[in-house]
Amino acid sequence: MFTKSFLKKIAQTEKVSLEFLERQMALGRIVIPLNNTRELDKPAAVGKGLKVKINTNLGTSTAKNDISEEIAKLNIAIEAGTTTVMDLSVGDDIAKMRKEIIKLSSVPVGTVPIYEAACAAENNKGNFEKLTFKDILAVLRRQAKEGVDFFTIHAGILRDTINILSETKRTCGIVSRGGAILTRWMYVNRKENPFYENFDKILDLAKEYNITISLGDALRPGAIADATDQLQLAELNVLGELVKRCRKNGVQVIVEGPGHVPLNEIAFNIVLEKKICHNAPFYVLGPLPTDIAAGYDHISSAIGGAIAALNGADFLCVVTPAEHLRHPSIDDIREGVMASRIAAHSVDILRFPDEMQKDNDLSLYRAHRQWDKIFPLTLNPEKAKSYRGGEKSADKLCSMCGNFCSLKIIEKCNLLK
Amino acid sequence: MFTKSFLKKIAQTEKVSLEFLERQMALGRIVIPLNNTRELDKPAAVGKGLKVKINTNLGTSTAKNDISEEIAKLNIAIEAGTTTVMDLSVGDDIAKMRKEIIKLSSVPVGTVPIYEAACAAENNKGNFEKLTFKDILAVLRRQAKEGVDFFTIHAGILRDTINILSETKRTCGIVSRGGAILTRWMYVNRKENPFYENFDKILDLAKEYNITISLGDALRPGAIADATDQLQLAELNVLGELVKRCRKNGVQVIVEGPGHVPLNEIAFNIVLEKKICHNAPFYVLGPLPTDIAAGYDHISSAIGGAIAALNGADFLCVVTPAEHLRHPSIDDIREGVMASRIAAHSVDILRFPDEMQKDNDLSLYRAHRQWDKIFPLTLNPEKAKSYRGGEKSADKLCSMCGNFCSLKIIEKCNLLK
Repeated sequence: MFTKSFLKKIAQTEKVSLEFLERQMALGRIVIPLNNTRELDKPAAVGKGLKVKINTNLGTSTAKNDISEEIAKLNIAIEAGTTTVMDLSVGDDIAKMRKEIIKLSSVPVGTVPIYEAACAAENNKGNFEKLTFKDILAVLRRQAKEGVDFFTIHAGILRDTINILSETKRTCGIVSRGGAILTRWMYVNRKENPFYENFDKILDLAKEYNITISLGDALRPGAIADATDQLQLAELNVLGELVKRCRKNGVQVIVEGPGHVPLNEIAFNIVLEKKICHNAPFYVLGPLPTDIAAGYDHISSAIGGAIAALNGADFLCVVTPAEHLRHPSIDDIREGVMASRIAAHSVDILRFPDEMQKDNDLSLYRAHRQWDKIFPLTLNPEKAKSYRGGEKSADKLCSMCGNFCSLKIIEKCNLLK
Repeated sequence: MFTKSFLKKIAQTEKVSLEFLERQMALGRIVIPLNNTRELDKPAAVGKGLKVKINTNLGTSTAKNDISEEIAKLNIAIEAGTTTVMDLSVGDDIAKMRKEIIKLSSVPVGTVPIYEAACAAENNKGNFEKLTFKDILAVLRRQAKEGVDFFTIHAGILRDTINILSETKRTCGIVSRGGAILTRWMYVNRKENPFYENFDKILDLAKEYNITISLGDALRPGAIADATDQLQLAELNVLGELVKRCRKNGVQVIVEGPGHVPLNEIAFNIVLEKKICHNAPFYVLGPLPTDIAAGYDHISSAIGGAIAALNGADFLCVVTPAEHLRHPSIDDIREGVMASRIAAHSVDILRFPDEMQKDNDLSLYRAHRQWDKIFPLTLNPEKAKSYRGGEKSADKLCSMCGNFCSLKIIEKCNLLK
């Protein structure tokens, strides 16, 4: 699947041994999303024992449709430190958007192919409900050829599950776009999920292009009230089965997870997913431990993401301050990536001495108030610098404590390293 | 200490029974910081089984010395939902600043009296190292008379501990202002901590005015490298002893805690404090699980604070985005309080059905895209509204998914509550 020299480079970047990387990949606990038709400046591995990874969602919507703005977001996301991006466009020219992103991205690119298929059906047949699997497969093949590295496939939501949903109801029903499209399709056509029914065909294609399958969680809770319910768990069981089918067919696979989850259910949700899905890498969309923080959901997500990662989640989806409110701006993207990086880094320092060293170095410079050495080590040096502003003081103090700076006061007591 | 009718009101506000409140107060697990010379519009209880509380630090510094700006911060902090404020002024006219805050604050006010004592000694004697306990006691008495509700007293840092520190060294030494002042004083004067030596006199005063003692953690780790070290634990043991002395003398007491703590050490730090300090309410200053997020430390703190509160921390200190960089602006204060409220609320919903109901109501409105009902339930309605902006759409959609809104798509499938 990958050459030895490529894996060696990945192992070096990740600061793990080649043996560890190969063993975990053989077990399906680490994946490298990378289409075999292309190369990348910044390929990445995701999974057990590695640094926690971050994905940023980009893409046009039917209401916000500016390709150049999405490319600006791509650049800011990469600059801010995202590991991968997903193009979730549902705007006017999806193919053009995707081609641009694939051309310009130095990091792996994922998509949710049902979006393009649904948009095409809307345009060509007047309604996405008239989609056929043939249409879907054509989109999958086109995107595979173009070089998409990973596909989100919502194959875990079945008619049975929707029957449960229509009986039990949910506060926020279905908040997955792909899940909603498929649910509506199954509801109108009275047929089983075409991704589930034709999963082998998808696997054949994924194998041909070495595309990593990200098993989408169509039934992820979109409200605290819906967390860890019968529906989420029913889908998780199907995803566990699909993980095995992917691996049996030599296809790399990760699993997507919630969503909105109360604080005390986050840790066991991760453990549960790892158990049911045979230790497949886990990609979480949050989790958000409260529903009321619209405008601040990057903070909610940092809380949930940190706890998730501490308990084994491998891959965090960026949630921006615009979540639940609007299509994100370029600033929203940067602030979202930063919040995810705080969550990820807080776990990385527990695993990698090199990562911990960054904190230790910065703190030692802080103790000696060596601002010029502090800034480059911060998450966002420009922001840190602009916060400090033009402050000048003979003793390199900051305006918080001024002359009562604790570090200045104890300076002559010989208590610092 | 408090009248039955007052306690009844507090119990009602907290949505616990009067019996529970009284029992926990008798055990020292709940405190109500309120000077007996005054009344407050918004008194608060802090401790076991209650909603997680939030404190916001205000006050001038020697470099930023604008009383009206601090009053603006007081107002924004209260509006944003802080439970208490602390006046940490070390600027020009500390007495005037404090009197203004006490006059204008509807919530309990705390101070760190060593600051005023140290500033007065600098002005009157040329150096805070010339402080005497008589000077300190005079400040304590004046502040008590003026109506301060709780005092941070750094009585747990002893000469022995400083000897350990001078041998072992630390990356960030001492980051507590009060701790640094006392350390320097002990170092120069070769005497024991005057707060420790004269603790009985402090207790007499605290009892006279029903001032709650907040036992300051002078040796809290100010860097991940210093977390949960011998020094922090040595001080914690002293604080445990002092908790008993407070209770024996009928003085309400809480304990202050870290600081910078790695993610995997936060939970046990809380459990440890509760054990060593006989279940005194725990007031945490963060914790921050990474040192590199300057400019985003409100997010780091939300992560640490949520985990701390989930594990029993009762009281969160607001950390603003300006932490480690500058004296906070009014905006910094609001953003800091919001971040702490997300952490607190994420735990409150697990304890109080009424709190959970807020999330459930909002999510139900969200499912039906009833924006006008969503906004008032968000943490900061103005911010949420301004994010959504002037967006108009016949279907009440947002620009994120546009026509591919999952909730709109499944609307006719009868899957929502």
